[in-house]
Amino acid sequence: MTFGIASQTNKSLVIALDAMGGDNAPAIVVDGASLARAHYPEIKFIFFGDDAKIAPMVAKHSNLKDCSEIRHTPDVISSDMKPSLALRQGRTSSMRLAINAVADGEASSLVSAGNTGALMATARFVLKTLPGIDRPAIATLLPTQTGETVMLDLGANIECDAENLVQFALMGAIFCRAVLGRTEPSIGLLNIGTEELKGHDEVRIAASILRERPIPGRLYGFIEGNDILAGTTDVVVTDGFSGNIALKSIEGTSHLLSFFLRQAFSSSLFAKIGYLLARGAFKRLKKRVDPRRYNGAMFLGLQGVCVKSHGGTDSEGFANAIGVAHDLVSHGFNERIAEELATQYGLNGAAPENMEEPL
Amino acid sequence: MTFGIASQTNKSLVIALDAMGGDNAPAIVVDGASLARAHYPEIKFIFFGDDAKIAPMVAKHSNLKDCSEIRHTPDVISSDMKPSLALRQGRTSSMRLAINAVADGEASSLVSAGNTGALMATARFVLKTLPGIDRPAIATLLPTQTGETVMLDLGANIECDAENLVQFALMGAIFCRAVLGRTEPSIGLLNIGTEELKGHDEVRIAASILRERPIPGRLYGFIEGNDILAGTTDVVVTDGFSGNIALKSIEGTSHLLSFFLRQAFSSSLFAKIGYLLARGAFKRLKKRVDPRRYNGAMFLGLQGVCVKSHGGTDSEGFANAIGVAHDLVSHGFNERIAEELATQYGLNGAAPENMEEPL
Repeated sequence: MTFGIASQTNKSLVIALDAMGGDNAPAIVVDGASLARAHYPEIKFIFFGDDAKIAPMVAKHSNLKDCSEIRHTPDVISSDMKPSLALRQGRTSSMRLAINAVADGEASSLVSAGNTGALMATARFVLKTLPGIDRPAIATLLPTQTGETVMLDLGANIECDAENLVQFALMGAIFCRAVLGRTEPSIGLLNIGTEELKGHDEVRIAASILRERPIPGRLYGFIEGNDILAGTTDVVVTDGFSGNIALKSIEGTSHLLSFFLRQAFSSSLFAKIGYLLARGAFKRLKKRVDPRRYNGAMFLGLQGVCVKSHGGTDSEGFANAIGVAHDLVSHGFNERIAEELATQYGLNGAAPENMEEPL
Repeated sequence: MTFGIASQTNKSLVIALDAMGGDNAPAIVVDGASLARAHYPEIKFIFFGDDAKIAPMVAKHSNLKDCSEIRHTPDVISSDMKPSLALRQGRTSSMRLAINAVADGEASSLVSAGNTGALMATARFVLKTLPGIDRPAIATLLPTQTGETVMLDLGANIECDAENLVQFALMGAIFCRAVLGRTEPSIGLLNIGTEELKGHDEVRIAASILRERPIPGRLYGFIEGNDILAGTTDVVVTDGFSGNIALKSIEGTSHLLSFFLRQAFSSSLFAKIGYLLARGAFKRLKKRVDPRRYNGAMFLGLQGVCVKSHGGTDSEGFANAIGVAHDLVSHGFNERIAEELATQYGLNGAAPENMEEPL
């Protein structure tokens, strides 16, 4: 089943989907694409994966019929495959072919719910980093008391030097300008204290570099873990190890408190009646902090838009990740970041570092 | 005002208090001591600090009258003083003298809500580490879905090698046995993935050492940030940088969700009535996750019991930190850890590393 859209339409509307990545693929990918299409009627999809599985699913959605192409491949990158192995042996996998479609200009962007390490290593190898960026980072939006904040890196780079952190800060701030519309985003470096002398060398040197260089926003300084969701800064910058642990600690806390809350509401008859009365307000709160709303982590710093969906998400979450890819493309984020980095911050000279086994 | 208790009574019941440490000292220290005394009628206190301020406060509490001694010192370690400076210039500070009281055997333990870095550096210098322990760690209990978990390090050691992590694992497990009564505690190493190949060298080497050596419990393996509060393991081991960020991210999430919850309950008349009906259940929930209940971080690995209270806590929180010191002493935790380390795990040979400027 081939509709050949890529050749017929505006490429900026075409999104490549790794249909085989994630715990519930390809079902959530196809259903998610249909949900996303309902919001963005101009987008088209190329599904990469097992045609025999995908085609009947696509056929069930009338709104996918004329905007979808399936590229068959039997190969899948498993969730536990080492990134270096995925890179060497995954040349005909659904993930790799989706990335290739972006590199070849067939698609504007790609979305995958597959193996994060493999996706990052392959995307980095195929798409290359933007001039001036040594390493891409994984970024996400988080809800805060004051609105939303962008946080990076969430796990792409286990160890980062000061220059990496500085580049993350620039990318995060430009993202904030482009997508959240903040003209002078504040930048916080995640640390274990707010005093100048706190933290390891990398974070202290990064702070001193950011104090000297022109930046697309303003340096707030060091922040601590509790500042992330307090919304103290528009951008939260950290290494991938601490960032991943912080993000998952946040998820775990949210989970525990929901659990305690359910227990509290079922602990007495009064509490049960109270819940029934407050139900509407709770549904709105639940929607506000729904992790699916924040699904779709962005790989910033690549020459191409690559969005990672949570592996365990459902179709609604996957649709949201497609929406993130759509927004990044429609805001011309990658062009803006490349331009700002080159013209404003003198970051066009460094040769991108693109190794075979980056992770 | 001197009652001279230290010389009159069983030293194991005497707790040294840094009366000048913390945002609301000495008021919360004195009030907290009075609250703690109501729970533990056998304990006695030595308050270190400004006699002119402390004496009138102590006089207000009839239950402190016969169990308190005040040792006057005008010197205080400020909250932003560098640890190395605190060590050199703080020889007559309230914090240092409280630590000295433990080293001299006048008190069984000490509690301070002062500068964490200064407290750790000074306690380590004065009390020395236990044989077999290179670096002390900060540990705390956290509420989980299944009960309670002990987590360390929370910020004493910004960078840790594999051997440090192994020692933290042993101390955490022995703590779990002694204080929580778990005979075979499970140990999780905090990482950014659960597969064997994930993470930086230190955490992977620590896992392989723990797989080989006899340990007071069992190695669960790698865990992620969301596992902390899920209660996946009895002990969570990590370096002080990630641990501090995880702990404060947890605090921040709890804070944000409480904020959203308050908003939800005041968003409509129905929600307000619902809140009134469920109020009792909420009060119980609030009590269950009350950060004051978990106030009192333990410095594990020192030849003496040292408990750090949150700097911004109130008297109830400080009373809880005194309770932690009391429990550690009454469980003979330090004796047990020294004994288990020496006899079971062959960790009595290493010379303790006690530098002048450890932080």
